[in-house]
Amino acid sequence: MTVVGANSPATEAEVFAAHEGGKLSVGVTPEFHDSRALSIAYTPGVAMVSEAIAKDPALALRYTWAGRLVVVITDGTAVLGLGDVGPAAALPVMEGKAALLKQFGGLDAIPLVLDTKDVDEIVETLVRLRPSFGAVSLEDVSAPRCFELEDRLVRALDCPVMHDDQHGTAIAVLAALRGASTVVGRPMTRQRVVVHGAGAAGIACARILLAAGLTDVTVLDSRGILVPGRAGMNPAKTALAAVTNPRGLHGSLTQALPGADVFVGVSSSTVPEELIASMAPDAIVFALSNPVPEIHPKAAARYAAVVGTGGSDHPNQVINTLASPGIYRGALDAGATRITEAMKLAAAEAIAEVAAADLAPDRVVPHSLDPRVMPAVADAVARAVLGNCSGADAAAPGTSTTG
Amino acid sequence: MTVVGANSPATEAEVFAAHEGGKLSVGVTPEFHDSRALSIAYTPGVAMVSEAIAKDPALALRYTWAGRLVVVITDGTAVLGLGDVGPAAALPVMEGKAALLKQFGGLDAIPLVLDTKDVDEIVETLVRLRPSFGAVSLEDVSAPRCFELEDRLVRALDCPVMHDDQHGTAIAVLAALRGASTVVGRPMTRQRVVVHGAGAAGIACARILLAAGLTDVTVLDSRGILVPGRAGMNPAKTALAAVTNPRGLHGSLTQALPGADVFVGVSSSTVPEELIASMAPDAIVFALSNPVPEIHPKAAARYAAVVGTGGSDHPNQVINTLASPGIYRGALDAGATRITEAMKLAAAEAIAEVAAADLAPDRVVPHSLDPRVMPAVADAVARAVLGNCSGADAAAPGTSTTG
Repeated sequence: MTVVGANSPATEAEVFAAHEGGKLSVGVTPEFHDSRALSIAYTPGVAMVSEAIAKDPALALRYTWAGRLVVVITDGTAVLGLGDVGPAAALPVMEGKAALLKQFGGLDAIPLVLDTKDVDEIVETLVRLRPSFGAVSLEDVSAPRCFELEDRLVRALDCPVMHDDQHGTAIAVLAALRGASTVVGRPMTRQRVVVHGAGAAGIACARILLAAGLTDVTVLDSRGILVPGRAGMNPAKTALAAVTNPRGLHGSLTQALPGADVFVGVSSSTVPEELIASMAPDAIVFALSNPVPEIHPKAAARYAAVVGTGGSDHPNQVINTLASPGIYRGALDAGATRITEAMKLAAAEAIAEVAAADLAPDRVVPHSLDPRVMPAVADAVARAVLGNCSGADAAAPGTSTTG
Repeated sequence: MTVVGANSPATEAEVFAAHEGGKLSVGVTPEFHDSRALSIAYTPGVAMVSEAIAKDPALALRYTWAGRLVVVITDGTAVLGLGDVGPAAALPVMEGKAALLKQFGGLDAIPLVLDTKDVDEIVETLVRLRPSFGAVSLEDVSAPRCFELEDRLVRALDCPVMHDDQHGTAIAVLAALRGASTVVGRPMTRQRVVVHGAGAAGIACARILLAAGLTDVTVLDSRGILVPGRAGMNPAKTALAAVTNPRGLHGSLTQALPGADVFVGVSSSTVPEELIASMAPDAIVFALSNPVPEIHPKAAARYAAVVGTGGSDHPNQVINTLASPGIYRGALDAGATRITEAMKLAAAEAIAEVAAADLAPDRVVPHSLDPRVMPAVADAVARAVLGNCSGADAAAPGTSTTG
């Protein structure tokens, strides 16, 4: 595979200029050009609309923006590669996420950053604000709190809630693996997969691969392979240790990687080239850490048939933005109250189908700006909600993962 | 005075059509037209901005929208004339208010409606969300809770907070009284004023008139004149009873109104024509209840020299939208952390000055859509913040009213 020429890197001045004043604004539909217009859009006319909603609360979906509003939520504890920088410093990222949801998904989204790390308090805050919005995009919350927080929010709120760092990434990985498996000519589910990293993304990747029918998945955290009874595992890792590592491996990547077909790196660490060399022939390597991948894609390409990264400066960018705009769009369009496993699998399938039209070793997923992706994902997700997706568990509520 | 021809009233269909889909949307500044643009506005570029804010939190004002974002808050307990219709039914009104702040004040504003009536919980929720916004517009909260809630929010948050139903209305009344006093040729502060209604607006009107130097103000609630020791008074009324009614009157409007110079009606009730007839010559009548004024302006005009209402279908519309967009704009532009009494008085003065250029019995306040008002108010408020307003108490924090 070829590493395409990287774009000219952005200068610091250019970046700060792009964020000056923030990246969002509020637009207004009615024009108050005269008193009559004001009396229709505001008082006294608006009282008719409020009265109608008071009588039939379902009308709020039709006559307010709440039904299509996504709140992008964080406590600022796991912001990009920066870690716990707090809610104010997280806000530029959340504005960026809201901007993505608008530009890619046509969804109105606002960031709400929380000055508390307490799971109870975050849930309570969103429950109190519930009539204000239609869906929750949870972002950049540290593991393992993110598992409990997502699960608690899903139970507490009757609307779509998703922790994008988990599921957006996992869906993109599953889609990329479908494409890559076709490229290398191996049945996807028969492969031996190593997931390096057991934070939010790693746990969710392993889970979705199992949900998609893979059986030989081994997961490692910074202490090594997840094994039942091992020390230093949170509930999410313990649960995963029970259903992964069918070979009963112990140890580190040195034990896990030789002979593996697929490497999924979401660890924010590096992997020695000789370990990648020890993988099975025609290996698939997704080195997704950002901004520095676990192994440089050029080095990985010496041994692997397909290489993907998390960055936009190499081919096969395996990134959550392929999934989340279409998922929220499809969920809200279909009136979903949950984001189920079936909806996530349908999203991955839809992304893979867009790539399938033009599959190649350096095109196992669509480009992140490919305009075909969002509508395809939204449509597949909406069909999954309505139960028309083959094998869907769309009707089963509460399939959200938790530790 | 002449009652101008009312606009053709809006039909129900027209009103509902104007609110279909809600009245707000989110606009996005950066365009994600290619990967490079994405890498500047989102990851990895945005990490530089987050890091800078983590080091210097003041930079959040410059590189996010929070510094200019007004959150429009309600619990839905006193929505227009509808009462306690709840947060979902209040949302169309809050969207309208956000739209007004944008169109008149150039301010980005979002509605957050709260599914709790507990003052502690509302304060706690906004404290948790504090890094998300720059100012709070409190709306349609029932009295007397609104007094405690506003006071608690002012203490808890280091940003401008104002209950518009109180202070927006009071500022407009003070501005209108300045203009009307000039029209009738009486010194404003020497007049005998009767405020009919002791809810959010009535209490705030009485307070600002006292703050502006008036000494003969009598306030009535549905049980009659506020008198120290009277039964059925909440703390806000008790506090007001101690500093009003210098003539020691007891009883109802029948006792209060004969010989009075000014009537301010914010009571949602009606006043018999013969009582208006009993006022002093060249009386000033502001019958502000909506949609039905305390007395029809045509009837009031038989006895009064100046008549104002809260509606747009008669001259002299005395309405809070004259005040609030400019107040938030001025406060945010000047970096204010409170909205002080001096800022409110400066706002009223600025509104009155716009009207002064063209004063007449049917033009004692500017038209609600007059484009000169917002900039004049914003400028006066900003000057009050910076302490350049004569007689300002801008430097004194915590002058917000409370019961």
